[in-house]
Amino acid sequence: MSQTALIGVDWGTTSMRLWRFSKTGDIIERERSDRGILKVADGKFREILEAVASDSVAPDVPILMSGMIGSRQGWIEAPYVFCPADIATLADHLQPVPGGINAQIVPGVALRDVGGRRDVMRGEETQILGARLGRGRQLIVLPGTHCKWVLIEDGRIRDFVTFMTGEMYQALRRHTILARLMPDTDTGPDVEAVRRSFAAGLTASLDGEARLMQSLFGIRARGLFDELAPELAPAALSGLLIGAEISEGLALSRRWGLAEIAPLIIGGDILIERYQTAFQQAGISTTTGNEDAGALGLWRIAQQRNLVSQASAPQ
Amino acid sequence: MSQTALIGVDWGTTSMRLWRFSKTGDIIERERSDRGILKVADGKFREILEAVASDSVAPDVPILMSGMIGSRQGWIEAPYVFCPADIATLADHLQPVPGGINAQIVPGVALRDVGGRRDVMRGEETQILGARLGRGRQLIVLPGTHCKWVLIEDGRIRDFVTFMTGEMYQALRRHTILARLMPDTDTGPDVEAVRRSFAAGLTASLDGEARLMQSLFGIRARGLFDELAPELAPAALSGLLIGAEISEGLALSRRWGLAEIAPLIIGGDILIERYQTAFQQAGISTTTGNEDAGALGLWRIAQQRNLVSQASAPQ
Repeated sequence: MSQTALIGVDWGTTSMRLWRFSKTGDIIERERSDRGILKVADGKFREILEAVASDSVAPDVPILMSGMIGSRQGWIEAPYVFCPADIATLADHLQPVPGGINAQIVPGVALRDVGGRRDVMRGEETQILGARLGRGRQLIVLPGTHCKWVLIEDGRIRDFVTFMTGEMYQALRRHTILARLMPDTDTGPDVEAVRRSFAAGLTASLDGEARLMQSLFGIRARGLFDELAPELAPAALSGLLIGAEISEGLALSRRWGLAEIAPLIIGGDILIERYQTAFQQAGISTTTGNEDAGALGLWRIAQQRNLVSQASAPQ
Repeated sequence: MSQTALIGVDWGTTSMRLWRFSKTGDIIERERSDRGILKVADGKFREILEAVASDSVAPDVPILMSGMIGSRQGWIEAPYVFCPADIATLADHLQPVPGGINAQIVPGVALRDVGGRRDVMRGEETQILGARLGRGRQLIVLPGTHCKWVLIEDGRIRDFVTFMTGEMYQALRRHTILARLMPDTDTGPDVEAVRRSFAAGLTASLDGEARLMQSLFGIRARGLFDELAPELAPAALSGLLIGAEISEGLALSRRWGLAEIAPLIIGGDILIERYQTAFQQAGISTTTGNEDAGALGLWRIAQQRNLVSQASAPQ
């Protein structure tokens, strides 16, 4: 382990990912844990971290963390920095963790726009810095429980909006009458039928006219008349919600004055595929980010702060 | 109790209302119970009914019921009749309850429109018949867990759409991150501040442009920065959702070709007030229905079916 130059941790509400980096910035070890911050009792963050790192953490190896670990419910609060924010802003505001551990937390990013609208992110700012940011205006979409649409301008986080799509899906799917006709698992055995059901959901809400509220109950009604199989209902709901999100998001992107709407999508495989399908159905071409965007973002922030060597430049 | 000409029951998922009618159609007794059909164990509907009627049910007094009591989860399924449906359609399809009890259930109404859209109602059809239905086209809105927007044409239920607004409110308020900053009760002690918070929610979603998905998380973000007091957050969420519903519903009403959009609102007091406020903010004038619309509808269906005297005509 003497080869380790940095330990990077993306520590969210429900899970945690950990990477060890070599001196040249290569990832030499990856760990994943379901011990999100909400599952850590009595503030025992250090114990969990050391257990996941499967080694006691060496005092000379810096640790850099991002995500909800820096929230009020986390290890220690890393106060938000405000938009516009770039890598220097974030690196300048790392929050040291108390207790004699060589660890710091990347701050989240907050927004207050001219109309007084508020928004916040924690963790996504680091994934964004792991992406290839060019000059000019650029759109990044990060699907998830709280999906973010982010306007980047010359490498800075300029504006963003959170869509609670993933959480709405779970709340409607588990805690409304729609739950009654849905099986416990999200996808059925017939992958093609699931895809078609998702696409049909998209069609109903992607047309630019607001129809989400009136379309949800149709899932129930079609189920009652055996016109929608229970195992296809979750995909129909997912399509409706993602379609409504993209419909709103595209209107937002036009207000942002993007010359071309061609989002970079960063996230897990299943969600990336669904969002790619949805954008494609809306006639929008996309690119997808490196799965290790979060790791790469942590490495770059560590470089910026001189926690690791400047020379290396991993891709 | 020999004066009783009819017992009417509106038996829903979470509660039940019961009325005794005199021979002239006057309501001589009202009962309310929280024993909705989901809280009735082992199919003991008759026992619950007799307990709520606070008397053993006399065999010569007809009982007419509406609502989810006629669903698959109820006493016995009363198959849906299809749109267009009027009082004759409903009265012709009453479903007798088995077991030697003089009781029948009003069927629900189902829709399948030209585009294949499906929808269903149970209970609202009876409330609608309790309203004053004129000639021509008319809009009725019935707020609730599943709010219905109904197009009436010459006294017939012609078309309708269900908005899951009430259930979305509960699911988002109780089962997402928004729950964390909300108190258990829905309204704070400062009634005027709650009204303003509701109105602000309406403003954000009533403008005709779809913004619901991106506005929900703002409740959380403003809470984080102490810009929205916890006791005002539920009203803000309610405003956002009802505003989005009305925005969609007004577009729908225009597609329905209503000469004038001036809905009749039927429902409980608190919801009626909120919907009146919302319509007013959208520049739409409303009228409100009799609180006993459900009772009156049951009486009229009983008359139509000759279960009670034709002569009486209660208002």
